[in-house]
Amino acid sequence: MSLAQSAPAPVVGNPVDAEWLRQRVDGALDTFLTGQERTLLAISPQLGPVCGTVRDFLLGERPTGRKRLRAAFCYWGWRGAGGAADEHGAVAAAAALELLQASALVHDDLMDHSDTRRGLPSVHRRFESLHRGSGWHGDAAQFGGASAVLVGDLLLVWCDALFSECGLPRDAVRRAKPLLDLMRTEVMAGQYLDMLEPAAVWPAGEAGAVERARTVIEYKSAKYTVQRPLQLGGLLADASADLTDAYGAFGLPLGEAFQLRDDLLGVYGDPAVTGKPAGDDLREGKRTLLVAETLASCSTADARLLNDLLGAPGLDADGVERLRDVITRSGAPRRIEDRIVALREQALETLASAPIREPQAREVLRRLVDAATARRH
Amino acid sequence: MSLAQSAPAPVVGNPVDAEWLRQRVDGALDTFLTGQERTLLAISPQLGPVCGTVRDFLLGERPTGRKRLRAAFCYWGWRGAGGAADEHGAVAAAAALELLQASALVHDDLMDHSDTRRGLPSVHRRFESLHRGSGWHGDAAQFGGASAVLVGDLLLVWCDALFSECGLPRDAVRRAKPLLDLMRTEVMAGQYLDMLEPAAVWPAGEAGAVERARTVIEYKSAKYTVQRPLQLGGLLADASADLTDAYGAFGLPLGEAFQLRDDLLGVYGDPAVTGKPAGDDLREGKRTLLVAETLASCSTADARLLNDLLGAPGLDADGVERLRDVITRSGAPRRIEDRIVALREQALETLASAPIREPQAREVLRRLVDAATARRH
Repeated sequence: MSLAQSAPAPVVGNPVDAEWLRQRVDGALDTFLTGQERTLLAISPQLGPVCGTVRDFLLGERPTGRKRLRAAFCYWGWRGAGGAADEHGAVAAAAALELLQASALVHDDLMDHSDTRRGLPSVHRRFESLHRGSGWHGDAAQFGGASAVLVGDLLLVWCDALFSECGLPRDAVRRAKPLLDLMRTEVMAGQYLDMLEPAAVWPAGEAGAVERARTVIEYKSAKYTVQRPLQLGGLLADASADLTDAYGAFGLPLGEAFQLRDDLLGVYGDPAVTGKPAGDDLREGKRTLLVAETLASCSTADARLLNDLLGAPGLDADGVERLRDVITRSGAPRRIEDRIVALREQALETLASAPIREPQAREVLRRLVDAATARRH
Repeated sequence: MSLAQSAPAPVVGNPVDAEWLRQRVDGALDTFLTGQERTLLAISPQLGPVCGTVRDFLLGERPTGRKRLRAAFCYWGWRGAGGAADEHGAVAAAAALELLQASALVHDDLMDHSDTRRGLPSVHRRFESLHRGSGWHGDAAQFGGASAVLVGDLLLVWCDALFSECGLPRDAVRRAKPLLDLMRTEVMAGQYLDMLEPAAVWPAGEAGAVERARTVIEYKSAKYTVQRPLQLGGLLADASADLTDAYGAFGLPLGEAFQLRDDLLGVYGDPAVTGKPAGDDLREGKRTLLVAETLASCSTADARLLNDLLGAPGLDADGVERLRDVITRSGAPRRIEDRIVALREQALETLASAPIREPQAREVLRRLVDAATARRH
């Protein structure tokens, strides 16, 4: 089991995908899941589909691979605070964040009624198929949805279980645990606000959309994906208040830049590279900052077209093209690119002066800024 | 705030409803929620409906009142292991189990598509109404369902947050935390199996239904409601292995008896006393042990009638009556009553010899056996 192996020297080429770290995170997840599967199957063999679905969701092969971004930021936050490179407990704690992310994805897909996740059926669809394929009684869709609620809940509980039992000294866990709980509250708040955005009716011409989109990015992405994981890793290694603050000041702009790049890729990304259909976000009707910026500056006619077509059922390639034109015309992409540059500068400046104790960590985090802001997928 | 008050002598008349304990549990929940509301509203005032819904769900007036059963068993498990009567930390830890229960109810109602909970709209229906009443865009039902997923997730996370920060020494929390995580895994497994029961197609005439119904009771009710809360309270007070085992041997039969009484009340209960419609479980189509026992012993004609009418849409009073007759004819209620008596004896015997350190705790637990097995609502 890879957790038992000694860690080779870290590859810093592209740390987000650093194979050595990902292998260790996967090893920690594998060990943990094996224990939970033992518990579940001892209760009843009928829990087999739950075990199988969770294992495949977390460890099954995926065409686009897995970034394990949150685990990576947690681990490098640990290293930057002086934590040992091959400390299995830190890797296990970092892996717990991937259980949280899996829970969020399972529940997100259910809330959005998404049929797929990374090109494979979403969890509620898998259980719906299990129900249909088995010729069971009752409503297959309801069974699928209910199963996904339970699987997401299990993953949320297991995030705690793995984090609490990661193997680091109890004081380390105790220091970091409140931030893990805050991080989870923040991301759920961000998800609710994100969901509210397209639903709520806002006062005509009110200018709050851009601000609200920023709040969603801050809580649903920046804090959740970068800032809190970094700070969690730091606290596990007893980071100073200065370093924790520096991680905060570095993680927020980097996390926002990462999300803004994601938003641009969601509209202009090359399907061959992103692995997602062209204009995916437009089809899903996501109310990103890019969309808010467009609405804040485009003509009334363009605004109407955007509101009509964004997320419209059966939006075709032509519709996607028309939406792209509206967004491009508005100049919003340019402004978003400028903001990414500014955020990148801000992150790099903070990083340069951060009281990071391990040079390699600073170097890896610097490269993460490049990976996050210049990536094409 | 009631946690700050000194505790009066415990009322042992009916400890499940013991006002003094319930007030303290509610006080702990109130304090905790106030802090979380501050966090959420600082993120955005638009999270107001989330705060309001959670507060009302946990602390709002309810016609039938609240048993706070899990908190009570946790508290008395603590007392029985020698924990101090007015230890606020123990009350807060016990209150965390009520956050877990609230999460389970919010998600259960969503999974079952239940419109109401204790006579008031279920959480997904509340958010659906918020969406409709506000004239928002999109699918109100989808918004309601998604909101309920997030609210249940929040409550699940908050269970941990309150338990971890209950204020007891870190060693106490550390001793009990793994059992809290196991308890949550067990109850979710039980919920999945419970959901599977009416859905799955079982081999004709296979005799496993009674066994499976017992497994569901064990994991969804007995361990979750009685055994684990007792053991959790005990571990928080550093209970000996002997006492933890004794709590286990006492809690399991008591928890099963409690659920079996519930099953009988769900079919024969007096609506005026239970506060639920007559034959509620029959309308909901619950596959209880009572139903499994009936199917195991009734005539083929009765079995067909039971399978046809149980949970049938728009089942009327006459249908309920016919189902009751089938169940009564089968002799299952008698066998369930006999089992309750046997379980009660088993629980009382274990209790009598349990190495409980506080006489009052033994007395209260003895009365809880009566309350659980002889209750009429």
